[in-house]
Amino acid sequence: MYLNIALLGGDGIGPEVLAQSVKCLQAVEHSFGHTFSFTKADIGAVAMKKTGEPLPEKTLKICKNSDAILFGAIGTPEYDQNPTSKVWPEQGLFKLRKELDLFANIRPVKVFPALAKLSPLNRGNILDTDLVIYRELTGGIYFGKKKVSKDGAKALDTCEYSEKEISRIAHLAFKAAKSRQKKLTLVDKANVLETSRLWRRVVTNIASSYPEVTLNCMFMDHAAVEMILHPNKFDVILTDNMFGDILSDQGSAISGSIGLLPSSSVGLGHAMFEPIHGSYPQAKGKNIANPVASILSVAMLLQHFDLIEEANAVISAVLKSFAKKIVTPDVLGSSKYGTDYVGDFIANNINDDN
Amino acid sequence: MYLNIALLGGDGIGPEVLAQSVKCLQAVEHSFGHTFSFTKADIGAVAMKKTGEPLPEKTLKICKNSDAILFGAIGTPEYDQNPTSKVWPEQGLFKLRKELDLFANIRPVKVFPALAKLSPLNRGNILDTDLVIYRELTGGIYFGKKKVSKDGAKALDTCEYSEKEISRIAHLAFKAAKSRQKKLTLVDKANVLETSRLWRRVVTNIASSYPEVTLNCMFMDHAAVEMILHPNKFDVILTDNMFGDILSDQGSAISGSIGLLPSSSVGLGHAMFEPIHGSYPQAKGKNIANPVASILSVAMLLQHFDLIEEANAVISAVLKSFAKKIVTPDVLGSSKYGTDYVGDFIANNINDDN
Ligand SMILES: [Mg+2]
Ligand SMILES: [Mg+2]
Repeated sequence: MYLNIALLGGDGIGPEVLAQSVKCLQAVEHSFGHTFSFTKADIGAVAMKKTGEPLPEKTLKICKNSDAILFGAIGTPEYDQNPTSKVWPEQGLFKLRKELDLFANIRPVKVFPALAKLSPLNRGNILDTDLVIYRELTGGIYFGKKKVSKDGAKALDTCEYSEKEISRIAHLAFKAAKSRQKKLTLVDKANVLETSRLWRRVVTNIASSYPEVTLNCMFMDHAAVEMILHPNKFDVILTDNMFGDILSDQGSAISGSIGLLPSSSVGLGHAMFEPIHGSYPQAKGKNIANPVASILSVAMLLQHFDLIEEANAVISAVLKSFAKKIVTPDVLGSSKYGTDYVGDFIANNINDDN
Repeated sequence: MYLNIALLGGDGIGPEVLAQSVKCLQAVEHSFGHTFSFTKADIGAVAMKKTGEPLPEKTLKICKNSDAILFGAIGTPEYDQNPTSKVWPEQGLFKLRKELDLFANIRPVKVFPALAKLSPLNRGNILDTDLVIYRELTGGIYFGKKKVSKDGAKALDTCEYSEKEISRIAHLAFKAAKSRQKKLTLVDKANVLETSRLWRRVVTNIASSYPEVTLNCMFMDHAAVEMILHPNKFDVILTDNMFGDILSDQGSAISGSIGLLPSSSVGLGHAMFEPIHGSYPQAKGKNIANPVASILSVAMLLQHFDLIEEANAVISAVLKSFAKKIVTPDVLGSSKYGTDYVGDFIANNINDDN
């Protein structure tokens, strides 16, 4: 297969972990006889420094012309901690999602038995956790109209949702639930938010088309509690943009290492794959960032193009790195292996004889 | 001291746990020579059934004329799970907070060493946790303008904040930090929300009046992770209405039992005290609800009126119940003690010879 892949390293540790993913994709090329072409482009703070824009026109064009996008991370303290900033690196990512209509962010949270002891939760609460969050990604309050009063003393954000925006991701989530444990949990604040009530109405209606799936509705504050107390009771979680942002980061925390979890953002015509973690600016250039989340997002990319054997080869190589303790220090404090070494080990263990 | 206390039991287990708090206040009356007069009033689903309104005019009047309000819990599945509901029990509580201008919700999360094993977190992550959340309670998206399109296919919520709303709670939080560990964490989403950027500007300005307090700003998704990984690093958390709703419930989950944590909601002229837990409708009438959160909110009430010795007598009696394992089954699975028994034990152990 020929795939044209855009590489958006972004800020902080983004470029470092992305470089490991490229090695893995090259290993897949060689072992399985595919051809991947890579095109690098700027996004985030690094793009702002060069062009003033967090998402330059050139980057958007490259992404639109690609089959898939591999993304690193975004954000730097120099902008994030500055209350006078007018443009924020994150706006580049939001604009990209919007322009490509990547409306569904899919975040699996699976606990690897070999690494369950990493979890801050007691074993009983974490074992068997295998859930996936479907987060709406292009609507809601992050994209709503904003306003500041002239004197700067008042500010306003708007959260808006339409039936169409809700139903297209709801169908994806119901289909996923159907192929999994057949449980769908809608997370909202329908006791206080009008948009949440719309989510409940739309999702409850769609549920009748998936009679094998059990739908359960849960308030966001309660879901944040359940994610700590009984994460293994969730199967598929469906939620809006902001609740999904919070809940999926929480999910990554309970799993033991924020450095292990991949994600995808899909629309009807485009797909982007990225680690769930942020730009971790304190670790930039230190060769200590965990490349596994980015590498597992390569596996999601391969699955997206139905290259299942290839995806499994990547996952096998990752599991081998866990078994041999070839991991970065965030996973095993005493480990002396850096980002590069772990990336090389995994890439070198990707082959077609699994 | 004479205090006129309004009793709002509300829904589910609310009235049952409140009854235990009244016993404790009566014990304080007898032991310390105070006079408390109690006036019951309806709120929530129970009020809706009687009057159609979740906050009847009569209840509001009683609250306005009281020195303090003791509140139980609100919400029932018959309304909460019904997507066609137009009025929700919770609206009664929101209206009450708004009418009395109870703009600051204060939620301590302290781990009792005797009960640390209840926590879903490994001991290392939970020990020494002693934080307090200052949640803005009368503004933000829960109270913003809402809209549904005529055809019902679109919905909208608005989040609005003013400098004044932010600064009055910020001062309370800075003062609390000054008398504690001198660390204040502002939780927001300033990378995406205009209201969050206003919070940062206002709070950063106020910080200069409290030079002994260190201010740290944290994004909400990251705070949800830190609450799981390093809860003991927080001292005072300051945040908006919705983030505070989620974060404080998360805080109660990590502490081990949602049945143990009290809260207060204060304004300039009124104060309300309530457990952090919900109405837990499945437990209603079963005499299994944990009355400790409600009883500890009595201690917060007494502290509010500078009855420090009295508050300590209540806390001592609660600690005695832990030490003697006179607790409800949510705290100790094998326990056969019910709500009433635990309430009686604590009330009977409140005296002035501590
Ligand atoms: Mg996030
Ligand atoms: Mg809540």
